[in-house]
Amino acid sequence: MSNQFAPEYIRAIAPYQAGKPISEVAREFGLDPQKIVKLASNENPCGMPPSAKQAVQHVLDETGRYPDANGFELKKVLSERYDVPQSWITLGNGSNDILDLAARTFVQAGQSILFSEYSFLVYALVAKAIGAKGIQVPSVNFGHDLMAMLKAVRDDTRLIFIANPNNPTGTFLQPVDIETFLDKVPSNVVVVIDEAYNEYLDSSIQYDSTAWVKKYPNLLVSRTFSKAYGLAGLRVGFGLAQPELTDLLNRVRQPFNVNALAQAAAVAALNDKTFLEKSARINADGYRYLTGAFEEMGLEYVPSHGNFVLVRVGNDDGAGTRVNLELLKKGIIVRPVNAYGLPKWLRVSIGLPEENRAFVKALKEIMA
Amino acid sequence: MSNQFAPEYIRAIAPYQAGKPISEVAREFGLDPQKIVKLASNENPCGMPPSAKQAVQHVLDETGRYPDANGFELKKVLSERYDVPQSWITLGNGSNDILDLAARTFVQAGQSILFSEYSFLVYALVAKAIGAKGIQVPSVNFGHDLMAMLKAVRDDTRLIFIANPNNPTGTFLQPVDIETFLDKVPSNVVVVIDEAYNEYLDSSIQYDSTAWVKKYPNLLVSRTFSKAYGLAGLRVGFGLAQPELTDLLNRVRQPFNVNALAQAAAVAALNDKTFLEKSARINADGYRYLTGAFEEMGLEYVPSHGNFVLVRVGNDDGAGTRVNLELLKKGIIVRPVNAYGLPKWLRVSIGLPEENRAFVKALKEIMA
Repeated sequence: MSNQFAPEYIRAIAPYQAGKPISEVAREFGLDPQKIVKLASNENPCGMPPSAKQAVQHVLDETGRYPDANGFELKKVLSERYDVPQSWITLGNGSNDILDLAARTFVQAGQSILFSEYSFLVYALVAKAIGAKGIQVPSVNFGHDLMAMLKAVRDDTRLIFIANPNNPTGTFLQPVDIETFLDKVPSNVVVVIDEAYNEYLDSSIQYDSTAWVKKYPNLLVSRTFSKAYGLAGLRVGFGLAQPELTDLLNRVRQPFNVNALAQAAAVAALNDKTFLEKSARINADGYRYLTGAFEEMGLEYVPSHGNFVLVRVGNDDGAGTRVNLELLKKGIIVRPVNAYGLPKWLRVSIGLPEENRAFVKALKEIMA
Repeated sequence: MSNQFAPEYIRAIAPYQAGKPISEVAREFGLDPQKIVKLASNENPCGMPPSAKQAVQHVLDETGRYPDANGFELKKVLSERYDVPQSWITLGNGSNDILDLAARTFVQAGQSILFSEYSFLVYALVAKAIGAKGIQVPSVNFGHDLMAMLKAVRDDTRLIFIANPNNPTGTFLQPVDIETFLDKVPSNVVVVIDEAYNEYLDSSIQYDSTAWVKKYPNLLVSRTFSKAYGLAGLRVGFGLAQPELTDLLNRVRQPFNVNALAQAAAVAALNDKTFLEKSARINADGYRYLTGAFEEMGLEYVPSHGNFVLVRVGNDDGAGTRVNLELLKKGIIVRPVNAYGLPKWLRVSIGLPEENRAFVKALKEIMA
């Protein structure tokens, strides 16, 4: 290999390891795909909302056409829901696309991007992909240390990623602390609040980040349809920001980044309150069941505000890998988090009641 | 506007103007969307293949899950069709994504990217989005001047885009000329051959670019499912290259860039020879009809190997804009090509027989 074709920063990237698809685990371990339980990618265990399936079928006949590059219908409902003009919305091929666009739009090679230890790996990846310096700020209690992040801002820092709730730990930042942070951060540094798991927050702690978007010209809030809305396979996310940031993001965005079926499905899912409420209820019940089981088994876990729980499965750095392999052999797919620097832990998505039971049964057998 | 958030090269980008969607033209001109004829985006007028619609419906129930990040099933059929290992394939969210990835992966800000005058605007856009220098080489006879492009290669040139057939002009490069070019181009410069319209080539001039991929480690061939395969709304494209280039592209690629329904539809479309043959036949018939009408009307056109024709609608630089507006008023959407430096011309996609007739009727009324 001559390695002559790409800059050093590209060659240094280790590709993102996605959760293993069911078909791959079935092939690898010789299992019946029907019996595999996948709790690895924080998907909604209820699947795609029936309303969204209908919407897809309704537009199939027009899908030989390019998608609407401006996403008129989807932006219209988002604009009403979040009470911002359409010119404040950027559509993404999942919120991953919004995170990627933010780095490409606001940061040049050699400048720096801040994020927290134990936060979403994609933040580090999008920094590497543009040759930026990713600065990881040590975590406190598995969450963001906002004051430390503020101190870590350098002259060359152009972008800060904050996840609330955070993945893979499930920690939650108090709105008052975020607002203090936004007040203090230099106004020429763009802050992305990644709210992929926002819809799982208990109503008692919900907060209004749109009000912040109206207040702070350097703020971009990203959301996704891949979690509570059940559209992970369709890839739809969006960013909310004032027109200056939004206009810049849309210059770099591929015009047809969100496909036609995804746009139609997202409109339907956004209007499907019944599905969202059911999903939140199943998640809350599952959370109580799983954490109850962990307590019964004497396993440490991080209290979570998402649709997943980080649980410690051993005391040595081989524990996560070992228990994960044993789970795979039993047809249970969860997420090892070694790449996050958490080799003693596993992240398990909250599934349907029967999936949670199958996981707990398998885990008890393995830990016994 | 403070313009403080993004580097100068991002602020200098003029966003890509997509073809107007039918719904937008209906709103703007107060027309019945059912009666609008869209010949603006080189879509397949037969729409999405029925086989692909079935495939979408078949996987809808799994679409709450993330797509397979490695695209196993789709890469499998592509691998068989093109006789290359799966490790030679990069999946893209349309071939736009492949073009974008090529620039991001192989080129740094300040380096240069070569392409031809009158070739796809996205080449210039992806260069701008990374702060690279886009070098446009003058065209000959509306096509690529490969020898001039060879001479234009600079020490800092990292990437060359070649389109065959070319959009928006429809010109075709002889395979022998491309091979000569590939032999002579410096081996550390990546060449992308964009073959978005390849499936429309008459069998008498088809050529085997896969053989070149096997021969040249610096070659990336890009293809799309948006044209002859009828999946424009679903966004699927792919790149073929040796493992070194492919591995680099996949480090920058967003893991879930191609959605689950799109992957399933593409597998079905690739296997649907009947649909592809029908599409090619309708296109060849439409080409004969449209060019016959242009000759009858005394309008100059560029002989095309794609599913579109570039036609000169006047002698002054306002002609394209003027005739386009008159066509829009009559509910006919075509593509103005002012942004390509072709203000006297319009690009019209080849439609179904009745669409072509409606366009010719309207054009005759306007030109009379």
